[in-house]
Amino acid sequence: MNRSSTRDSLETIGEFGLIRQLQRQWPASSPWIITGIGDDAAMLKAPPGQQLLISTDVLIEDIHFDLNYQTPKDLGWRAGVANLSDIAAMGGTPLYLLVSMALPVRVPPQHVRELYRGIQAACRPFNVELIGGDTSSSPSQIFLSLTIMGSVRVNRALTRNNAEIGDHIYVTGTLGDSNAGLRILQTHSANRRQFHAPAVETFLVRRHLRPAPRIHVGQLLANRKLAHAAIDLSDGLSSDVGHVCEESRVGAEIRATALPLSSQLRAFARRDKRDPVEIALQGGEDYELLFTAPAKHHQNVLRVSEQTKVSITCIGEIKPKTFGRQLVLPSGRKQKLSSESFRHFNNR
Amino acid sequence: MNRSSTRDSLETIGEFGLIRQLQRQWPASSPWIITGIGDDAAMLKAPPGQQLLISTDVLIEDIHFDLNYQTPKDLGWRAGVANLSDIAAMGGTPLYLLVSMALPVRVPPQHVRELYRGIQAACRPFNVELIGGDTSSSPSQIFLSLTIMGSVRVNRALTRNNAEIGDHIYVTGTLGDSNAGLRILQTHSANRRQFHAPAVETFLVRRHLRPAPRIHVGQLLANRKLAHAAIDLSDGLSSDVGHVCEESRVGAEIRATALPLSSQLRAFARRDKRDPVEIALQGGEDYELLFTAPAKHHQNVLRVSEQTKVSITCIGEIKPKTFGRQLVLPSGRKQKLSSESFRHFNNR
Repeated sequence: MNRSSTRDSLETIGEFGLIRQLQRQWPASSPWIITGIGDDAAMLKAPPGQQLLISTDVLIEDIHFDLNYQTPKDLGWRAGVANLSDIAAMGGTPLYLLVSMALPVRVPPQHVRELYRGIQAACRPFNVELIGGDTSSSPSQIFLSLTIMGSVRVNRALTRNNAEIGDHIYVTGTLGDSNAGLRILQTHSANRRQFHAPAVETFLVRRHLRPAPRIHVGQLLANRKLAHAAIDLSDGLSSDVGHVCEESRVGAEIRATALPLSSQLRAFARRDKRDPVEIALQGGEDYELLFTAPAKHHQNVLRVSEQTKVSITCIGEIKPKTFGRQLVLPSGRKQKLSSESFRHFNNR
Repeated sequence: MNRSSTRDSLETIGEFGLIRQLQRQWPASSPWIITGIGDDAAMLKAPPGQQLLISTDVLIEDIHFDLNYQTPKDLGWRAGVANLSDIAAMGGTPLYLLVSMALPVRVPPQHVRELYRGIQAACRPFNVELIGGDTSSSPSQIFLSLTIMGSVRVNRALTRNNAEIGDHIYVTGTLGDSNAGLRILQTHSANRRQFHAPAVETFLVRRHLRPAPRIHVGQLLANRKLAHAAIDLSDGLSSDVGHVCEESRVGAEIRATALPLSSQLRAFARRDKRDPVEIALQGGEDYELLFTAPAKHHQNVLRVSEQTKVSITCIGEIKPKTFGRQLVLPSGRKQKLSSESFRHFNNR
């Protein structure tokens, strides 16, 4: 609105310069893209026999990230994975990405390019193509908004609302590492990280900065019709189990002793005198998958784990709605599974 | 990231409460939507025989809007129209919308609902359905990111890169009103607007706050194969003619005397001792369509105007690239058509 000029170097590149750079850096080549970046809208054909998926995420500086302890490329990677993970949770194949950002003048063009490179690096293994976006200046914080499109075979998508009583509840990978990594980053300066136990801390920090989207696991679960319901673990296990239970109108029992915890998380928790189970339950941004599957598919689920080389652990069972959501403690005592974890509106 | 709690009332509603409210307020009913809001991704069928369109726009407080001189509902309307207009410029039919927003604690829930109502009001005439989005807190500004999907018949889309030498250049509606309306808003308090010439000022302000997306014009131009190229006027005529020329590798001649100017804009310019032609050329956010069509289709283009009751004016002609972009002044003298108008990175 106000037209007073700025002196940032983004002004020199300009929005259209940035778009042209991106077209060169990340050219569209899919046979389903008719027009990519550069027109009023991107134009696509739908892959035949497939349903389309679309999801969007916003990431706000000082709410979701802080460039004091991560690089622009780290940020780009996590933004990409947050979107890829939504497609993974539907059992789909990611196809296209739209990247919108608003940037304050203090952000140098090099950082913008690094940010895109991070997004691109996360997407490259899946041949996701950049088809659009919008760029603006911002008065203060960096705002990122990514929209991802994908496809899934007709009637194969994994939704949140299809869990059935008696289903096993599974998660991929290990839980809580990302949250521990974030805490480590928050207590160390980005430039002078002096770790007590470098192997532990480097592992956890990397799990926060470079999470892996579980695309192949989701695809195999969907295409082989193994899972009833799925969600990605972005808010934290307690919350995300809650979403599945609410949408499926069921209850759940989670066994604390069954939660997959890395040795690094245990070491971190021991040193910090914290309960690793609590970190695993409440810590967000693992970007692992949680899914439910009937007991008869257990062996087939383990085969997905072998084939994808991603660990899959049974952590509990779907119960009737009246059961509620309960956590079985190591003592055998049960307590209510609280979903007081990562809530976006508590989050500043 | 930081978990210190806030006391805003959005916290009380929560993100999931907001989503549920939206589902009630704006239920999805299209046969092409399999899953709307509430899962990791929305799931869609592609309408048969159609190509898909997708476009996204960001709107940042203090850059693109200021709630000191517009209501949340006004803002929602304009955000909706900015997206609808991108689909109009492709000759398409808008179908689905994803709405992401980041909101500082000072924004009351009532304003959030009003904002959605504005978006919905702009979309209602076209039966656009809300299928997703994301909501977050924001440390300072309001951040809006809308993504729209639409469809267009195979090989009928209007692109920017297809203008041909000899084409007439047309625009819908009148130009510059929105920019004049914005200036009026900026110089009057929102609560105590005392206009010199209320009829003039009310008209121009309304043209800024409630622009009309030219969906039907775009659809008729595309389906009847009348236009070679099209763009919506969001950056300002000079810039937007430039985009078409660059993408189509052609030049253009625009006749200043041909530009459609409302009597209200002329009155405003006279009082402010400004050149209405300059406002029409440089003022952005008209959300009118600019398109090029071969001379032989002139009568058919006028018929589109009659049928849609939207004025359409021929303002110039596509020329060879070597001609450049020229403005013919009322005196007959020519000058370079400058595209120094609304540039996003100059824009704070």
